Formats: sequence, structure tokens, C-alpha cells
Amino acid sequence: VAEPESARPSSPADGRLEQQLRFLVEIDRLKTVRRRTLLTDRSRRENSAEHSWHIALMALLLSEYAQPGLDVTRVVSMLLVHDLVEIDAGDTFAYDVSGNASRVERERNAADRIFGLLPDDQHAMVRALWNEFEAGETPEARFAVAVDRLQPLLQNVMASGGTWRSHGVTMEQVLERMSPLAAACPTLWRYAEWAVTEVWVSGMVRDPEAEP
Amino acid sequence: VAEPESARPSSPADGRLEQQLRFLVEIDRLKTVRRRTLLTDRSRRENSAEHSWHIALMALLLSEYAQPGLDVTRVVSMLLVHDLVEIDAGDTFAYDVSGNASRVERERNAADRIFGLLPDDQHAMVRALWNEFEAGETPEARFAVAVDRLQPLLQNVMASGGTWRSHGVTMEQVLERMSPLAAACPTLWRYAEWAVTEVWVSGMVRDPEAEP
Repeated sequence: VAEPESARPSSPADGRLEQQLRFLVEIDRLKTVRRRTLLTDRSRRENSAEHSWHIALMALLLSEYAQPGLDVTRVVSMLLVHDLVEIDAGDTFAYDVSGNASRVERERNAADRIFGLLPDDQHAMVRALWNEFEAGETPEARFAVAVDRLQPLLQNVMASGGTWRSHGVTMEQVLERMSPLAAACPTLWRYAEWAVTEVWVSGMVRDPEAEP
Repeated sequence: VAEPESARPSSPADGRLEQQLRFLVEIDRLKTVRRRTLLTDRSRRENSAEHSWHIALMALLLSEYAQPGLDVTRVVSMLLVHDLVEIDAGDTFAYDVSGNASRVERERNAADRIFGLLPDDQHAMVRALWNEFEAGETPEARFAVAVDRLQPLLQNVMASGGTWRSHGVTMEQVLERMSPLAAACPTLWRYAEWAVTEVWVSGMVRDPEAEP
């Protein structure tokens, strides 16, 4: 038989820890936000939490291609938080023009609510990371954005043009989307440019019947 | 019509970048490794990739409870790679005694194969992170282990005793499992101890009928 509520000790977490834990439980919901990208085994669409893990590790391992002296820790921190707003705002497909028009406001409201669960100092810290990523102006943000673009490219190349094909995206749109790589990490840009062209030229996108 | 293979330029990625990209594509499979823990909305079991994201961010935001002077970047890096071996070795449920007996060898073979996809220097770096986490002896590893234990606790508390109940785990087993928190982050340990006791005392585990 359960003891009455009042007879039990209350949580030893103080206000600060309680806010932090509430935030950390809330963000579990990012695991249910679906992106358009398929897993490489094509079994299902990727979610934003596992995507964030993937690109954080990509940034760690590919940082040698970014501008020397980059603060990799800041890049990784940015990538770990950059998609949290999708818990409220949803994932907007990169090639959805009308969705992207309303994206900014939806995401700003989401940032207010979700980051606002944290104690003030951490709210400010996470907000600054997110703002920096969105602005894409510092070397760290530029590299973070580049890695965020490169990862679905790898998934799509492995899945034979996956979501590009199924959503009727053109090669020019993809190359435009990948263009932040050119300044942030030229070696990775040359690879991306080749890989995108390869997917199209090989007929993987144009001719769905040809896929294995 | 597709051009013949030979008429197209070959990949501009050199051997090193090719190894890195092969590794980064391979680790996509971590997204299909299922843990026992449920998401907080109880819709499905969590996978190891999204779990890794969650604890990396937990480590960033809870580092004030760890030993002062801790290298948080190293903790985060450790957490991003610590589960990769599960791609080959699978996730072993923490409370599965026989599975844990064979775990060490299975995971060592997995580390050889998966980390071995990387260029030698990065293979060594990732291996060192993984070894450090597994040994659990440095302050960074101790805190990483603690956070890795705390996250399913939060999920289970939110899911009213979730996997503890469904797998017949005892309160003593859970407290033993959480014990690394005591030395690594005493404040979080006090919370964990309270939360585990609360789940049991409130009858959430003993009395499945009582759940909302």
C-alpha cells in the first residue's frame, strides 16, 4: 500500500536543479520530431535528436577541414541545441518555401518557451548558441551550418538520392543548399559538389526504376 | 540515360577523407540499436543514438554538479562515442547478468572493427575516449558514467517506473546501478536516491493498476 503523499520526504532538488531537470526531461520530445531524411538502411525517417548526435560527432571528426583555430567545443554545443526549437515548431523541410517563410517566428516562440525552462544564466547561454547558429556569421557557426547540411547529403547519397528524389528537388537546389560548405570547409565542399553531381549524373535521381 | 562509370570524374575525397566519411556513414546504424528505456511519452523504446545526444547535452548543462575544473569537452566527446560499439555488440540491458558477462569481449571486437574504419590517429583518439569511459577512473569518465546512469532514471521516473517495472528489477538493483553518482556528483545522487525511493514507495512500481 502506498504511503500518503504528505508522509514522504519532498524532492531534495532545489529550484535550480528542478528547472534543469524539467528542461532535460522536456527535450526528450526532440526524439519524436521527424525529419525528411531517411536512415541509410532506408528503414524509416530520421528524428532530430539522433540527427543532432550524428552531426555533433561529425563536427568533432571533421574539424580539421574547418578554419584553423576554430573552437570545436562551441561548434559541438551549438549542434547539440540547434534543433531544440523543433519540439514546438516542427522540422521544416529545407526545400519547403512557404514553410520556411513562417519558420523564423515559430522558432523564436519555441525558443522562448523551451530555453525559458532553464535557469536564467543557462537560458541565456543556450539562446546565445542558437542565435549564433541561426545567424551563421562566426567561423564556428559557419562550420556548424556546413556540417548540418553535409549530413543529409551523406544519407541521401547512401540512399540513392532518397528524399531529393521523393520530393522532386532539383540538383541546382541541392547545390545551393550545400553552398555554405564552400567558405566554411572547401575540401568538404568539393566532395559535396562531386557527390551531388554524381547522384544526378548516375541517374539515381532521374530514374527511380534503376535503383537496386 | 546514365553516363558510363568511366566517363565520370572520380571522388575528390582522398584516402583520409574517404575513411572518415565511411565511418560517419557506418555509425548511422547506431540509430537502429534499441535500448530498454522508453521515451517519456512511452510511445516506443529509445535508440542509442538519440540517447547519446541526450546525455551529451545533460553533461553540458549539469557540469556544475561535477568536480570543479572538469574538462567538459572531454566528457561530451566521450558520451558521443561511448555507445558506438553497440552497432555490432548490441545494447546489453544493465540488469542482464549473463549478457553482461560476455559484453566486454563483444564490445572490444566491435571497437576494433568500427573505430578501425577511421584514419589511425582518429582511431586512437576515439579508442582512448572509449577506454577512458569504460575504465571510469578519471573525473571526466566518472561524471560521464554518472550522466549515462541518470538519464534512464529520469525517463523511468517520468514513465512511472517504466522498464524497471516491466523487467522486475528491484529498488536495491537500481540504487546500486546509480551508485556512481555518489562520488561523481553528490547533489545529483541525492536527487536520484530520492527519486528511486519515491517511485517505489509511491507504489508506481509495485502496483501497475495504480498508474494513470
